[in-house]
Amino acid sequence: MRLENDLDYKMSLAKKIYEIIFEADTKAGKIFDIGLLLIIISSIIIIMLESVDYINNRYSYYLLILEWIITILFSIEYFLRIIVVKKPLRYIFSFYGIIDLLAILPSYLSLFLPIGHSIIVIRSLRLLRVFRILRLTKYSKEAELISKALLRSKAKILVFLFAIITLVIILGTMMFLIEGKQNGFTNIPKSIYWAIVTLTTVGYGDISPVTPLGQFISSLVMIIGYAIIAVPTGIISVEFSRSSKSELNNTQVCPNCMNDMHNEHAIYCHRCGNLLN
Amino acid sequence: MRLENDLDYKMSLAKKIYEIIFEADTKAGKIFDIGLLLIIISSIIIIMLESVDYINNRYSYYLLILEWIITILFSIEYFLRIIVVKKPLRYIFSFYGIIDLLAILPSYLSLFLPIGHSIIVIRSLRLLRVFRILRLTKYSKEAELISKALLRSKAKILVFLFAIITLVIILGTMMFLIEGKQNGFTNIPKSIYWAIVTLTTVGYGDISPVTPLGQFISSLVMIIGYAIIAVPTGIISVEFSRSSKSELNNTQVCPNCMNDMHNEHAIYCHRCGNLLN
Amino acid sequence: MRLENDLDYKMSLAKKIYEIIFEADTKAGKIFDIGLLLIIISSIIIIMLESVDYINNRYSYYLLILEWIITILFSIEYFLRIIVVKKPLRYIFSFYGIIDLLAILPSYLSLFLPIGHSIIVIRSLRLLRVFRILRLTKYSKEAELISKALLRSKAKILVFLFAIITLVIILGTMMFLIEGKQNGFTNIPKSIYWAIVTLTTVGYGDISPVTPLGQFISSLVMIIGYAIIAVPTGIISVEFSRSSKSELNNTQVCPNCMNDMHNEHAIYCHRCGNLLN
Amino acid sequence: MRLENDLDYKMSLAKKIYEIIFEADTKAGKIFDIGLLLIIISSIIIIMLESVDYINNRYSYYLLILEWIITILFSIEYFLRIIVVKKPLRYIFSFYGIIDLLAILPSYLSLFLPIGHSIIVIRSLRLLRVFRILRLTKYSKEAELISKALLRSKAKILVFLFAIITLVIILGTMMFLIEGKQNGFTNIPKSIYWAIVTLTTVGYGDISPVTPLGQFISSLVMIIGYAIIAVPTGIISVEFSRSSKSELNNTQVCPNCMNDMHNEHAIYCHRCGNLLN
Repeated sequence: MRLENDLDYKMSLAKKIYEIIFEADTKAGKIFDIGLLLIIISSIIIIMLESVDYINNRYSYYLLILEWIITILFSIEYFLRIIVVKKPLRYIFSFYGIIDLLAILPSYLSLFLPIGHSIIVIRSLRLLRVFRILRLTKYSKEAELISKALLRSKAKILVFLFAIITLVIILGTMMFLIEGKQNGFTNIPKSIYWAIVTLTTVGYGDISPVTPLGQFISSLVMIIGYAIIAVPTGIISVEFSRSSKSELNNTQVCPNCMNDMHNEHAIYCHRCGNLLN
Repeated sequence: MRLENDLDYKMSLAKKIYEIIFEADTKAGKIFDIGLLLIIISSIIIIMLESVDYINNRYSYYLLILEWIITILFSIEYFLRIIVVKKPLRYIFSFYGIIDLLAILPSYLSLFLPIGHSIIVIRSLRLLRVFRILRLTKYSKEAELISKALLRSKAKILVFLFAIITLVIILGTMMFLIEGKQNGFTNIPKSIYWAIVTLTTVGYGDISPVTPLGQFISSLVMIIGYAIIAVPTGIISVEFSRSSKSELNNTQVCPNCMNDMHNEHAIYCHRCGNLLN
Repeated sequence: MRLENDLDYKMSLAKKIYEIIFEADTKAGKIFDIGLLLIIISSIIIIMLESVDYINNRYSYYLLILEWIITILFSIEYFLRIIVVKKPLRYIFSFYGIIDLLAILPSYLSLFLPIGHSIIVIRSLRLLRVFRILRLTKYSKEAELISKALLRSKAKILVFLFAIITLVIILGTMMFLIEGKQNGFTNIPKSIYWAIVTLTTVGYGDISPVTPLGQFISSLVMIIGYAIIAVPTGIISVEFSRSSKSELNNTQVCPNCMNDMHNEHAIYCHRCGNLLN
Repeated sequence: MRLENDLDYKMSLAKKIYEIIFEADTKAGKIFDIGLLLIIISSIIIIMLESVDYINNRYSYYLLILEWIITILFSIEYFLRIIVVKKPLRYIFSFYGIIDLLAILPSYLSLFLPIGHSIIVIRSLRLLRVFRILRLTKYSKEAELISKALLRSKAKILVFLFAIITLVIILGTMMFLIEGKQNGFTNIPKSIYWAIVTLTTVGYGDISPVTPLGQFISSLVMIIGYAIIAVPTGIISVEFSRSSKSELNNTQVCPNCMNDMHNEHAIYCHRCGNLLN
C-alpha cells in the first residue's frame, strides 16, 4: 500500500515536473520558461565577457564560478528532462536534445581531456531554445505568418539559390583564370568566395579585381547581383501579400457550410453556392 | 485696477507667446517656426565647420561668437517655453524638453567645468525638432502614411529583428571559435559585430574571414543575408499596398448593396449600378 | 521676284533642317538621330581612351585629331540648332542647350586659356541626350511607366530622404564624438559621409569604427539601414502595382460614356451607372 | 538481307542511344542524366582541388588521372551525341554543343600546344547543363514561373539598366575630374568601375573618394543607389504577383455570368452562385 502510494506519488511528481518543464499552461511552467530564458541569456553574456581579454584577465575567477553554476543548472535540467519524458531516447536524439547536451558536455570533457576551454562557446547554440519558449507569446502569430510565407516560397527560393550557386561557381572559375594567383584569387574556392562576396553586394575588399578585364566582369557581376536581389524580394512579397489577403477574407463565414475563405467581392459561397450575408 | 490690468496683460502676453512658440496657426507662429528651423540648421552648420580643422584654425573666433549667439537665442527660447507653458515640469521632462536643454547646457557647463568643448555637438539632436515643425506641411500626410505602415508592421519587424539578433549571436560565436584571435575576431562581441556587418551586406572589410572554413561559413551568412533582406521588404510592401488600397476605397459605401470597394472617382456602384451619395 | 524665291527657299531649308534636327518623323530625321547617337558615343569612347595613360602615350596624336573632328561636328550642330529654332535664346538657356554648349566650349577655351585639357571630359554629359533620342523607340512606353511611378511616389520618397538625411547628420555627429579624430572620424562632414556609407550598406571600409561603443552603434545603424531599405521598395512596388493594375482594367469600355478605367470586378460603369457588357 | 538487318539494328541502336542521351522518359535516360550530373559535379570538384596548391602538391598524380578519365568519358559522350543526332552540325554549333566541346578540347590541345594547363577550368561551364537536366524535375515549374516573370519584365529591366549605365558613365567621368589620378581614379573606365561598385552598394573600398567634394558626390550616388534598388524590385514584384494571380484564377469561367476570377478550389461562382464545371 505504501509502495503503491510512493509510486503514485513518484509518477505524479514526474508528471508535474513534465508539465513545468515541457509545457507552459501552468503558472509554474511559465515561471520555469522565463527562468530558463534568463539563465540562457546569462550564460551567453558570461561567454561573451570571457572572450574579452580585458575583462577575462581581471575577473576570470568569478566568471569561471558563474560558468560552473550554469553548467550544473543546465545538467540538472537535462537529467530532469530525460527522467520525466516518456520516450527518453527520442528526446536525447531530437534537435533540442542534442543542443541541450552540447551545452553541458564541453565543460565536463575539459576536466579530463586536453581540449581547449574556448569550445564552451558552442553553448550559445542554446539560444535557439528561445524560439521554442517564445512560441507561446503574442508574437507567435506573427512569427508563424512569416515562417508560413517562407515555407510556401521554399521551392522558388531553392530554385533561385541553385541558380545563384551555379552562377558563382562559373564566375569564380572565370575570375581565377583572368586574375590569377598574383591578384589574390589564389584558388577556385577562394574565387567562388569572392564571387559570393560581390554578388550579395557585401564587398569586403579583401580580394578585389585588379586587371581591367577582371574589373569589367566584376562590374557585370555587381549589376547582375543588384538586379536579381529583386527576385527573392518579389517571391516573398507575393507570398506575404497572399497570406495577408487570406487574412482579410476571413471575415465572411458561409451560413450553410461554414467555409471562411471567401474572395473579397464574394456574394455567394464558392463551395456550396449559398448566399453570404 | 491697474494691477488687474497688468495681470491680464501679462496673461494675454503669455498666451500670445504660447501661440507663437507652440502653435502654427497664426502668421507669427509660422514665422517663428521658420526662424527656429533656420537657427537650428545654422547651429548645425557652425558645429560642422568647427569640427573641420582647416576652417577652425582660421575662423575659430567668429565661429565661437556665432556659437554663443545661438546658445543665447536657444536659452531665451527655452525659458520662454517654460514660462508660457501650463505644466512646466511636464515640458522639461518631455522628449523635446530634454533635447532643448541638452542643446544649451554644454555651452554653460564648459565655462565652469573642464569638460571638452566638443561635447557641444550633441546640439545636433535639436535637428529632430524639424519633424515637429514639418508636421504642418503638405508632406505631413505622406509622412503619416509611411509611419502608419511602419507601425502596423511593427510586430512582424520585431519578430524579424529578434531572429536576426539570435542568428548573429550564434554566427558570431561560431566564427570566434573558427577564426580565432589571430585573424581579427578578437572577442565574441567583435565577432557579432562582424556578423552584423556581413549579414546586412555592409562589408567594411576591417574584419574578414581568412581560414577556408571561415570563408565557407561567411558565404552561407552572405547568401542568407541576401535572401532574408526580402522579408522586411515583403512585410512593408504589403502594409503599404494595404494602406494605399484603403486610401482609394474605404470612403464610400453603396446604399443599395453595401459594396465598399469603390474607385476613387466612382459616382455609381460598379456592382449594382446604384447612385452613390 | 528672285529675292522672294530666295527667301522662300531659305525658310523652307531652315524648316527642313529643323525637322531633321529636332524631329524624328521623317527618314532623314531618324538618320540624323542615329548619327548623332553614334557620334556622342564615339566622343565618350575617345575621352575614355585619352584618360588611360597606356593608350594616350601611344596614340595621343590620333585621339587629338578625332577629338577636334567631333568638336567641329558638335559646333556645326550647335549653330544649326540656334539658326533654325524659332526662339534661339530659349534653346540656348534650356537644359539641353547648356549641355550642348558645354560639350564644345572647353575645346575652344583650351586654345586661349591655360585651363587643363582634362576639363573636356564634361562632354560626357551629352550622353544625357540619348534619353531624348530614345524617347521615340519601342522602349519609351516602359520608360514612361517607370518615370510615372517614380513621379507619383515623389512626395513619399522626399519624406523618406528627409528622414534619412536627419538620421545621418545626428548619427555622424554622435560618431564624431564617440570615435574622434584618431580613428578616422576627422570631422563631422566626414562622419556624416561614413554614416551614409554605412546606412546604404555600401561599406567601403576607408573609415570604420574602432571603439567597442562605436562598433555597437554602427551595428544599430546597419540593422536600421537593412530594415528601412524596405521603405522605398515598398513605396515604389505599390506604385508599380497600381500603374500595372490600371493597365489591366482598360479592357472594358462603358458603351454609354466611354469611360475605360473600370474595376476588375465591375458590372456597372462607376461613372454613369450603365451596364457593362 | 543480312545487311538490311544490320542497318536496321544500327538504326534502332542509334535511336535507343538518342533516347537515353537526349531524352529522359525511359529509366535508362534518367539514369544517364543522373550519372552525367554526378560526373560534371565530380569534374568541377577535381578542378577546384587542383587549383588549391596545398592539395595539388600532394595529389597531383591522382587528380591528373581522374581528370583524364573524365575527359575520356566526356569525349565518348560528345561523339555519341554527334553520331546519334539527326542534324550533327546543328548540335555542334548549338549553345550546349559548343560548351560540350570546350569541356574536352583544352585537355587534348595541352598535349600538343604549349598552352597553360589552367585553361581546363573552363570545363566548369558544363555546369550549365544541370539546368537542362533539372528541367525534368518537380522544381521545373517554379523555375519556369521565375523565368517567365523575368522575361515579361525584360523591357522594363533593360530601360532601367540603360539608365544605370548612362548614370555610371557620367558619374565616373565627373569623379575622374574631381578626384584625379592621385586618389586612385587613374582613368575613366576605372572611375566607372568605382561608380558601379558604389551604386550597387558593393563598396570594396579598393578605390574610395578622398577629397571632400568627391565624398559629397559619392554620398549622393549612394543615396541614389539605395533608393533606385527599389525599381527592379518593384518591377519584378508586380510581375510575380501578376503571374501568381493568373495561376490562381484564370482556369475557370462561370457559365452563367462569365466571371473568371475564381478561387483555386471554387465549386460555385462567388458572384452569381452558379455551379462551375
